Amino acid sequence: MQKIDGKITAAKIKEEIAAKIQEMVAAGGRRPNLVGLLVGHDGGSESYMMMKTRACEQCGIRSSLIRMEPDVTQEELISKINELNRDNDVDGFIVQLPLPKHIDEQAVVEAIDYRKDVDGFHPINVGRLAIGLPCFKPATPSGVLMLLEHYCIETRGKHCVILGRSNIVGKPLANMLVQKAYPGNCTVTVCHSATPNINEMTRQADILIAAMGSPGFVTEDMVKEGAVVIDVGTTRVPDATRERGWRLCGDVDFATVSPHCSFITPVPGGVGPMTIVSLLHNTLLAATGEVYKK
Amino acid sequence: MQKIDGKITAAKIKEEIAAKIQEMVAAGGRRPNLVGLLVGHDGGSESYMMMKTRACEQCGIRSSLIRMEPDVTQEELISKINELNRDNDVDGFIVQLPLPKHIDEQAVVEAIDYRKDVDGFHPINVGRLAIGLPCFKPATPSGVLMLLEHYCIETRGKHCVILGRSNIVGKPLANMLVQKAYPGNCTVTVCHSATPNINEMTRQADILIAAMGSPGFVTEDMVKEGAVVIDVGTTRVPDATRERGWRLCGDVDFATVSPHCSFITPVPGGVGPMTIVSLLHNTLLAATGEVYKK
Repeated sequence: MQKIDGKITAAKIKEEIAAKIQEMVAAGGRRPNLVGLLVGHDGGSESYMMMKTRACEQCGIRSSLIRMEPDVTQEELISKINELNRDNDVDGFIVQLPLPKHIDEQAVVEAIDYRKDVDGFHPINVGRLAIGLPCFKPATPSGVLMLLEHYCIETRGKHCVILGRSNIVGKPLANMLVQKAYPGNCTVTVCHSATPNINEMTRQADILIAAMGSPGFVTEDMVKEGAVVIDVGTTRVPDATRERGWRLCGDVDFATVSPHCSFITPVPGGVGPMTIVSLLHNTLLAATGEVYKK
Repeated sequence: MQKIDGKITAAKIKEEIAAKIQEMVAAGGRRPNLVGLLVGHDGGSESYMMMKTRACEQCGIRSSLIRMEPDVTQEELISKINELNRDNDVDGFIVQLPLPKHIDEQAVVEAIDYRKDVDGFHPINVGRLAIGLPCFKPATPSGVLMLLEHYCIETRGKHCVILGRSNIVGKPLANMLVQKAYPGNCTVTVCHSATPNINEMTRQADILIAAMGSPGFVTEDMVKEGAVVIDVGTTRVPDATRERGWRLCGDVDFATVSPHCSFITPVPGGVGPMTIVSLLHNTLLAATGEVYKK
């Protein structure tokens, strides 16, 4: 069994991104510029944004944060988005979700110029992903594929079973892994809350990706000997032994499942660290115009 | 075994569409208007367009055909598309594919205003389909779902195995059937040319959808007793006994497979007649503004 180390992989890819940016700048190019839009004062959102900003700094990406009060109107928010859409010095920007309830999130996502949508949530990016065209890929699925690639895991013709059908993880992962590409070319099965015989499906998986947000759901008896197991779950569960009172818990019962795997990601330290790397990667691609011509 | 009759189903739905349009017009509304854009003189494309025009007439949809010579430039074609995008009297329009090789099909598809894209090929419609939002759904997958619905076939929690991952059938079908909806809520597996153990997968299918374009590929031994089998294949195979020298052949060996099915579509007369109905349905939705507000 080999443990897939997301921290080390993320650090390596960040170094690669940093090197490319240094090269661009040395050649007289602009430094990529990412803007974050944060509405309100939610602690979780604040700390995500801080992590993203710090990661940008590490790679030599300029980044800045625009804060808006929680009572901002949808019109004001979209007007700010239009400003960023027009600003030639901004390569990409992200609107931290969730948004206050009086704002229509989908309308906000669709207001973003898809050529600057480094979160990959705009329908044009979702659609191009589905038909296998260049696009900004969503962060978490993209992080999963980077891990498979980094560990040279064979995917062609493998049966990949995905647990969960969220719009930001399960569905895009299915759309990515079915493509004629590497990583990809998998036979893909998507299971979810309406799947009656989930154990029967998971036991067939050469590659099992758990993205349900159900701590410890995947147990030993559900996994085939030698399977690759990717755990996307990150649920905070109470833990009195920790100072902060909680710990992150994946969808896979690591202790019992891991001895049966060829590769497995831990939680924390598996997929988690990769998501920000995907965002940095998209920002670089936005700056170079590799996905959409400038 | 019940044979799913696409001709009768299509005729019924056409009547429903015609009735709705009559109602709209009686209430003083505009008659829906579909425009077809045909480049070149390909026999197949000509006859598809004629069929679409005739079906429009049957339902009371206005339709017209714009012909362009095969040497039309991409710019000229896109300029015509922009004209149709702006024309308030045009509810929807379609560009018959394939296009001559000197034209970038994807660029043409993306030039169409997604709110008039009744073929459902624009990335915005593809993306909204994937995340389960209202959109124009592509014709063939939509026709398959209409058949499942018309025959009241239970789909929730069923294992749907799709053979084929084309952008116009396999992939959108997978994206539709995984949604929390009816028809849908299936455990969905997509198999394709890189799937090594395809028989093992098909034998698990409660609902098997064949969309490979491989005549007679699905044989008796590949189908579970009582399965629902939907055959999307339509390949012309030589047939000296027919006056025209060919017949349409599905991906399923109907003679041996059908005795084992609860429901099965024949070829021809199954999914085929439904695709035009989906187009008419989309045109109606475009006219009423039910998908995208006018």
